[in-house]
Amino acid sequence: MLLGKVIGSVWTTQKEKGMEHVKLLIVQPVNSMKESVGNIVIAMDRIGAGVGETVIITQGLPAQKLTNEKNSPIDAAITGIVDSFEVK
Amino acid sequence: MLLGKVIGSVWTTQKEKGMEHVKLLIVQPVNSMKESVGNIVIAMDRIGAGVGETVIITQGLPAQKLTNEKNSPIDAAITGIVDSFEVK
Amino acid sequence: MLLGKVIGSVWTTQKEKGMEHVKLLIVQPVNSMKESVGNIVIAMDRIGAGVGETVIITQGLPAQKLTNEKNSPIDAAITGIVDSFEVK
Amino acid sequence: MLLGKVIGSVWTTQKEKGMEHVKLLIVQPVNSMKESVGNIVIAMDRIGAGVGETVIITQGLPAQKLTNEKNSPIDAAITGIVDSFEVK
Amino acid sequence: MLLGKVIGSVWTTQKEKGMEHVKLLIVQPVNSMKESVGNIVIAMDRIGAGVGETVIITQGLPAQKLTNEKNSPIDAAITGIVDSFEVK
Repeated sequence: MLLGKVIGSVWTTQKEKGMEHVKLLIVQPVNSMKESVGNIVIAMDRIGAGVGETVIITQGLPAQKLTNEKNSPIDAAITGIVDSFEVK
Repeated sequence: MLLGKVIGSVWTTQKEKGMEHVKLLIVQPVNSMKESVGNIVIAMDRIGAGVGETVIITQGLPAQKLTNEKNSPIDAAITGIVDSFEVK
Repeated sequence: MLLGKVIGSVWTTQKEKGMEHVKLLIVQPVNSMKESVGNIVIAMDRIGAGVGETVIITQGLPAQKLTNEKNSPIDAAITGIVDSFEVK
Repeated sequence: MLLGKVIGSVWTTQKEKGMEHVKLLIVQPVNSMKESVGNIVIAMDRIGAGVGETVIITQGLPAQKLTNEKNSPIDAAITGIVDSFEVK
Repeated sequence: MLLGKVIGSVWTTQKEKGMEHVKLLIVQPVNSMKESVGNIVIAMDRIGAGVGETVIITQGLPAQKLTNEKNSPIDAAITGIVDSFEVK
């Protein structure tokens, strides 16, 4: 999984099957100093994450499996809102 | 998923099984400032995306699953046409 | 999928199950200007691609599924030979 | 798999199904000189890895399969604690 | 698949299920000039590859499928030892 910071939202009208009623957030991956690293990820959110929060992002088929829909095209999801993290 | 901008089209005659009658667009991934980031992606389009539009791209097996064909070699698809997005 | 240019061939004698009788080509990913981007990919070819041709490359499990063999270790395949592409 | 060094821990309260009771560690990928390369990975740990240890990280669906839960959103796991490695 | 050069070995005692009795080699991806590109990959070897040899590496679920174990956490494997390759 990646560590990221929620920075915004995306809205679509024209979309593929399995994308209806999916809340999509824009997440910026960060390093252990909370500095931006790499390009943004568009991730499904089902746990109520909000802009400014640090989150855990799952990518690929493990994110798709969350939907429990055989043909869902979701390839990224927010799977945790980070309370705290510690780096030594 | 990635955010991207449709920049063109690709045509092939000689192709693998599962690529017949698939509309392929060239998509340039972008960041939250709509600046190009990384290399282009060739993505299946079934929702009528056009050059210049900002889209959402799904990659990997979740894109393949959209086809509902067991052996389809699709690994990227346009899964939403972006109406608007907001970054704070 | 990626856009790439076929630049060579690879031969192996000692190999894993599922790699026998597989034609492997060396493909250099390119951008929309046909400039090289990133490292080479070794891809299965079943459609007769040749050195110098521009091709479409599928990566990951969607490439493996083409083989229709449950345990094939193929993770990249040439899935189209490009006739033309247009970037606006 | 990647070689990495465990550098910390992450805690979440709000989380997706399948993330409950999962110990998450922050791992920094390293090269063969044990120098940091690329961004951190958040990985599931079930084998008792600790901060400072060099570990092997599995990514993607092979990590998810370890959980033996159909819909688990785990996409990275520590799959070995390195005793020693030798580079020639 | 990637082209790589075997540069070493890794040993672990504490490990996940499915990692027992797996020979793990350290492989450095290379380009068509045999120059190092990107970070090392830890790959399963079942075909007797040795340090200094040029090999083909399969990544992701196609590598896992080689094991024929449902829950194996292998995400990279050496699938060919390169006899020769030709770049034009």
